[in-house]
Amino acid sequence: MFLPRKILEEKLRNILAEDIGQGDITTALIVPADSTAKAEIISKETGVIAGMEEAKILLESFGFNVEILVSDGEKVKAKRILMKISGDTRTMLSVERTLLNIISRMSGIATTTRKLIEKIRKAKLKTKVACTRKVAPGLLYFDKKAVLVGGGDTHRLHLDDMILVKDNHIIVAGSIKKAIEKVRKDASFSKKIEVEVTKVKDVSAAARARADIIMLDNFSPEQTEKAVKLLKKERIFGKVLLEASGGITAENILAYASKGVDIISLGEITHSVKALDISLEITKSNKKG
Amino acid sequence: MFLPRKILEEKLRNILAEDIGQGDITTALIVPADSTAKAEIISKETGVIAGMEEAKILLESFGFNVEILVSDGEKVKAKRILMKISGDTRTMLSVERTLLNIISRMSGIATTTRKLIEKIRKAKLKTKVACTRKVAPGLLYFDKKAVLVGGGDTHRLHLDDMILVKDNHIIVAGSIKKAIEKVRKDASFSKKIEVEVTKVKDVSAAARARADIIMLDNFSPEQTEKAVKLLKKERIFGKVLLEASGGITAENILAYASKGVDIISLGEITHSVKALDISLEITKSNKKG
Amino acid sequence: MFLPRKILEEKLRNILAEDIGQGDITTALIVPADSTAKAEIISKETGVIAGMEEAKILLESFGFNVEILVSDGEKVKAKRILMKISGDTRTMLSVERTLLNIISRMSGIATTTRKLIEKIRKAKLKTKVACTRKVAPGLLYFDKKAVLVGGGDTHRLHLDDMILVKDNHIIVAGSIKKAIEKVRKDASFSKKIEVEVTKVKDVSAAARARADIIMLDNFSPEQTEKAVKLLKKERIFGKVLLEASGGITAENILAYASKGVDIISLGEITHSVKALDISLEITKSNKKG
Amino acid sequence: MFLPRKILEEKLRNILAEDIGQGDITTALIVPADSTAKAEIISKETGVIAGMEEAKILLESFGFNVEILVSDGEKVKAKRILMKISGDTRTMLSVERTLLNIISRMSGIATTTRKLIEKIRKAKLKTKVACTRKVAPGLLYFDKKAVLVGGGDTHRLHLDDMILVKDNHIIVAGSIKKAIEKVRKDASFSKKIEVEVTKVKDVSAAARARADIIMLDNFSPEQTEKAVKLLKKERIFGKVLLEASGGITAENILAYASKGVDIISLGEITHSVKALDISLEITKSNKKG
Amino acid sequence: MFLPRKILEEKLRNILAEDIGQGDITTALIVPADSTAKAEIISKETGVIAGMEEAKILLESFGFNVEILVSDGEKVKAKRILMKISGDTRTMLSVERTLLNIISRMSGIATTTRKLIEKIRKAKLKTKVACTRKVAPGLLYFDKKAVLVGGGDTHRLHLDDMILVKDNHIIVAGSIKKAIEKVRKDASFSKKIEVEVTKVKDVSAAARARADIIMLDNFSPEQTEKAVKLLKKERIFGKVLLEASGGITAENILAYASKGVDIISLGEITHSVKALDISLEITKSNKKG
Amino acid sequence: MFLPRKILEEKLRNILAEDIGQGDITTALIVPADSTAKAEIISKETGVIAGMEEAKILLESFGFNVEILVSDGEKVKAKRILMKISGDTRTMLSVERTLLNIISRMSGIATTTRKLIEKIRKAKLKTKVACTRKVAPGLLYFDKKAVLVGGGDTHRLHLDDMILVKDNHIIVAGSIKKAIEKVRKDASFSKKIEVEVTKVKDVSAAARARADIIMLDNFSPEQTEKAVKLLKKERIFGKVLLEASGGITAENILAYASKGVDIISLGEITHSVKALDISLEITKSNKKG
Repeated sequence: MFLPRKILEEKLRNILAEDIGQGDITTALIVPADSTAKAEIISKETGVIAGMEEAKILLESFGFNVEILVSDGEKVKAKRILMKISGDTRTMLSVERTLLNIISRMSGIATTTRKLIEKIRKAKLKTKVACTRKVAPGLLYFDKKAVLVGGGDTHRLHLDDMILVKDNHIIVAGSIKKAIEKVRKDASFSKKIEVEVTKVKDVSAAARARADIIMLDNFSPEQTEKAVKLLKKERIFGKVLLEASGGITAENILAYASKGVDIISLGEITHSVKALDISLEITKSNKKG
Repeated sequence: MFLPRKILEEKLRNILAEDIGQGDITTALIVPADSTAKAEIISKETGVIAGMEEAKILLESFGFNVEILVSDGEKVKAKRILMKISGDTRTMLSVERTLLNIISRMSGIATTTRKLIEKIRKAKLKTKVACTRKVAPGLLYFDKKAVLVGGGDTHRLHLDDMILVKDNHIIVAGSIKKAIEKVRKDASFSKKIEVEVTKVKDVSAAARARADIIMLDNFSPEQTEKAVKLLKKERIFGKVLLEASGGITAENILAYASKGVDIISLGEITHSVKALDISLEITKSNKKG
Repeated sequence: MFLPRKILEEKLRNILAEDIGQGDITTALIVPADSTAKAEIISKETGVIAGMEEAKILLESFGFNVEILVSDGEKVKAKRILMKISGDTRTMLSVERTLLNIISRMSGIATTTRKLIEKIRKAKLKTKVACTRKVAPGLLYFDKKAVLVGGGDTHRLHLDDMILVKDNHIIVAGSIKKAIEKVRKDASFSKKIEVEVTKVKDVSAAARARADIIMLDNFSPEQTEKAVKLLKKERIFGKVLLEASGGITAENILAYASKGVDIISLGEITHSVKALDISLEITKSNKKG
Repeated sequence: MFLPRKILEEKLRNILAEDIGQGDITTALIVPADSTAKAEIISKETGVIAGMEEAKILLESFGFNVEILVSDGEKVKAKRILMKISGDTRTMLSVERTLLNIISRMSGIATTTRKLIEKIRKAKLKTKVACTRKVAPGLLYFDKKAVLVGGGDTHRLHLDDMILVKDNHIIVAGSIKKAIEKVRKDASFSKKIEVEVTKVKDVSAAARARADIIMLDNFSPEQTEKAVKLLKKERIFGKVLLEASGGITAENILAYASKGVDIISLGEITHSVKALDISLEITKSNKKG
Repeated sequence: MFLPRKILEEKLRNILAEDIGQGDITTALIVPADSTAKAEIISKETGVIAGMEEAKILLESFGFNVEILVSDGEKVKAKRILMKISGDTRTMLSVERTLLNIISRMSGIATTTRKLIEKIRKAKLKTKVACTRKVAPGLLYFDKKAVLVGGGDTHRLHLDDMILVKDNHIIVAGSIKKAIEKVRKDASFSKKIEVEVTKVKDVSAAARARADIIMLDNFSPEQTEKAVKLLKKERIFGKVLLEASGGITAENILAYASKGVDIISLGEITHSVKALDISLEITKSNKKG
Repeated sequence: MFLPRKILEEKLRNILAEDIGQGDITTALIVPADSTAKAEIISKETGVIAGMEEAKILLESFGFNVEILVSDGEKVKAKRILMKISGDTRTMLSVERTLLNIISRMSGIATTTRKLIEKIRKAKLKTKVACTRKVAPGLLYFDKKAVLVGGGDTHRLHLDDMILVKDNHIIVAGSIKKAIEKVRKDASFSKKIEVEVTKVKDVSAAARARADIIMLDNFSPEQTEKAVKLLKKERIFGKVLLEASGGITAENILAYASKGVDIISLGEITHSVKALDISLEITKSNKKG
């Protein structure tokens, strides 16, 4: 997920523009036009930091000198200084909130993702943790990037990305078999094909129709185990990837991971984010640049 | 916060465009071009619904017939049908995720807001519950609107909206008094002036400098009580609005509300949203329109 | 009204893009690709200069060296050099007209605003002079900023900014009282409330309903005087701001100001601008950079 | 200058979006979501109306029924109803100001243009009245269209439109002759070539170099007369178009027109507009649609 | 590649806007504002038609009635009527060229794609024909969609779509093996991995490193044959997809297809398009709608 | 056709953004964040180079050092290095394809244009070669600019540029005479007027109605000769420009040019482009910047 700077700058500028409106009136009244300041961005909680690349590009494009002290993906303790910045005071105070909102949300996502992965790794399992497209509206890039920084899998980046046959597609197609056949026939060679199944018995139908990945939708850990057994019995286990999705939480994730699925995806990583507490503190302020 | 339809349509279309990329390839492969479907949007959890207006405008602008069954701000139980829609199946499946992301996030925000307010009202208190500008980046409109639907106060809609003198402004200005004087002198008559204070003793300085609102930043309930007493003693209590902000949660909110502040604002309403679980279920699908 | 540079750059670039079309064909035919030039921006009339900040950002973003000789808000005589610039000749000639249009319009607005204010100050009055939302379509930022530079009050920056109950709102609500009650009940604590009244007797209704500001719409100086007397009689004078608006010109402005209103707003400051005559003169031209 | 509806809609929506910000808060608080209203747009002054086409497209794209009673270019007296509209009340009050700003500015431009033309026609002269590119920044389309509606000539629509060799181009090229030669050699066959001259003697140089149009820049009426005589003497008069520009006002326009120039252009038509007073009056309001 | 109508409308409107500039001046001068016309879009050559969906959406969004007579992907002979349209004459003439440019280019691409595929199918081969990202700048959607309509494979829709390790990536990574290892380790499970190889011997390295697809870059037919033999010998043939790319033309395509590759990709399908000759003919014109 | 850098940057960034999607995933996985590289852009075929200015601006805006070795319009042989660039490796690989697509298409257009012109010049003829508006959708600027670089005439840059009365306009107007009269009466003095005629006899009608240019649409060389003779007989030849258009190819272009037309325009220069083969080769790669 590498975006050249100018592309990212535009995304960031649009976010800022909404917040600024016709301009920061408080700052204009209090801060002289030519004053400069130094400041530190500080994490007030323990967590995994994300958004450093985005913050740097936002800040540099607004003319700041930026010194990054913590890399994307690094775990920090409370009170850790993430970056030091210096530049125009008016601009600093105008972008402060937007900047912190980006780092806070992205770090919150990375922190949650990392915790889930660590839980799985401690149990000596290799299951991947993935997010879904259940992001904050319009934040697909930022939310997916944060998952990646946290060590997770980004899953589909948008609807043109992988073929994912979901419940409503199957209703329209008539059956899993018909849906996959249609897709197999005309899909680009460059795409993987995933199918969502809601019952254990559909798993072998999906596997036999040569799906690359099968999503076990809202399966209980027991159903998941049955699905794995079925595939082993049919000697397809290991030839198709299995993704568990739906109803999985930090509490029950090991119950799923231990059944042998390859990927576990959770909507809540991105739709129910707990932001990390990040603040900007001015350390020095000069009236004249 | 009334946005004419065309303005809102453009915001919504931009959100959708990011998710769609070069087009929904799964749907294009499975669903015939002229098929239509009926579907229901269902809340799978108890909560306060928001985003109905936004959903309706999104759906109608994409050609759907929409029947709204639940109004913005209504509290629903699990399994409640929120709206029925009918129209082009391909378009329905392409917009499904974006649509649900909007309703889920907005309803999650409204639900949390309402809970906080109900807790306060049950204690027979009139304190307002407000959000901050700590929203998901770029979602200022949607997050603030959801707070409003939940019964909360939107606070500043952007940086040109009210004058809010924060910690970093005071550092630059030199003192609370100097900051407010500068602002008083040149601010538009149309703006209120709020000042953030971090110590009890600063409260009376701020009040004497004729701030319209004083934000008690990260005060404990005890400090809050002292601030109120101070103002009463100086006979300014009731002439200036008091806003408690920072470190306030569902657990301790009554401790603050009971001290006599007018407004309690919480960043977590919008920065740490728990999305409400909403789904779209196709109830009928026709190959031919 | 402080806009970070990148936000302003985009506004300016969009304005320029409309004028440029597919490119400046005259300049491309005459001026070699690598020639540079020096030029001066000169005011050909006496007036108050505005738009220096905007011009600087536009020019610097297009690669020019810019030396500002006159600050925003400074009054100059005819023939005064406002800034010296140097850089790519082709770009200079391509942006010339857009650049001058911005400075001319903004300076025209600032000049008119200043004249009105000076007239009032000479009469030893403190009345503020404000603009309205009657701007050139799409130029809300530039027109309001110019008023500010001229010393005026920007009034509402857009429709989400302060609550202003106007004639048509009152028609819909049924009465001034009902309108203000509705607004009082649900409005954000962060907003002031202004009400437009068209008859003297409505002034006390508005004041009693606790409007923060009352706009006397199209009142004659005599009606204005009556309104003030009424408020004094009811002992509300001084507790609510009074804004005179409608039908006020440079000729009759003192008649209003002397009656004791706090603010006088005039649509013509921004809707009927007399541009200041500004020109760009090349002082040196080199074929090679 | 015919713009298909969707193109114009986008221009208009962008203008409105700036004014709306995060939404019309007053209207949202006072006007019920499903109320409708009827209203009339009325000219409060005598003038030539422009902007009816733009207003209609704006209003229809926001869902209003629109009845146009006055055509673009028609001269009306005070109190004339220009159009009747009906539709959603909230939307009506939210777009009111932007709508009126467009009609007021465009009608103001059309009115001034028409007056100048009538003055010339009364003197039995055929001279065309043209505007320049000295428009309000970003309003090239609207300002030029208004001139056209008023009966004037739009001159260049942007910088790629006709070749216009101005003073600064001549400085760079070295001489009028060199500038025109360069241009003649490489310009597209589809473009006319106009040259700006500042001295009488340069007129014949420009004509001999085969400019299609010569702009007499800041000539006095006497210089204009001399230029015409010179061309007559050299038997080029009538073979090249003459445009008088700079320092021309309503007062002295006949002095120029009577000298035999083909076109008179005035920056002030568009840079120093006097808006026509237009208002929207609600005639009926229903709470329920 | 299904794009909801509103998303496609915006792409199309932006294309049109560039061509229209400040408006169609010829049409405005000649065609009355309220005239309507009927017209036919006709193919003047034999070919495979694409762009009907896009044309319909463009035309309907500009208010036309559209009757589609030929479906996307259908092969037509010269003089075939593709669609009949009726609506506003001014709009029709303003969008004519943009409309025809879209259909002509897309149909040209579909026609070439189909010819290549038919050649291969006649030889009883199943090889897929794919395009590359060598499209006209900015026309990724339209060019890829046209290939799809012609029966071809769209390959990557953008850079986030499949992992394609190209020559320059291998230079940076150090070797094919290192490049694929890096990618295997961290890539999303949802992505296929393709590797570009330039020598026969690298084919087995790529296959052993478990690439999903190997691109034989600029291989001669003989080298291609050797690569296939090598894979057969190593018993990997059939387990990895083979794509031939570079230097392949209509003339030599069978030489490649017959060697057993799965996909043949050609840049020229999209970078060197021969447009199909399409015209719009007015069949009826009414001055009054 | 000179576009200031920032305007062109935005066009280029939008083109790139479509290709990048949510980011270059291959490059992100393989190339370290801080590595730099040097590369050469090489023409692999003989041709006329265009797009150097655009490439330079694109590259510099993404932070590259750029050394241009070949100027726009220069003819090169195969293997010629066009430019050397150095900078961030990730960005280089992400923009590579878009960059090459622009240079390839523009150079392809310039090469074809130049060949046609050289053919005409070798025959000692002065006829201009022009393109039309039959460009790739949305690429009006780039396609026209490439024609210019190749030595051709850009013809109309958009629909507001010159008045061109085409077949469908004449159908609506009733006759050539009526069409030109309407246009003559109201057109801006700044515009030339061209008329398209389809029969020899219409040529004198168009000339007598004082068209500036007559387009002989789909005339055979014989009809073209007759048209010229007719104009000579009526003594109008040389007073009106003649443009031959429609059905003209590299093969028959001399047959037209030799008849005495002033301009020959060909749609295929821009609608059926043969891209020039251009590649980017990394010459040095460092892991650390």
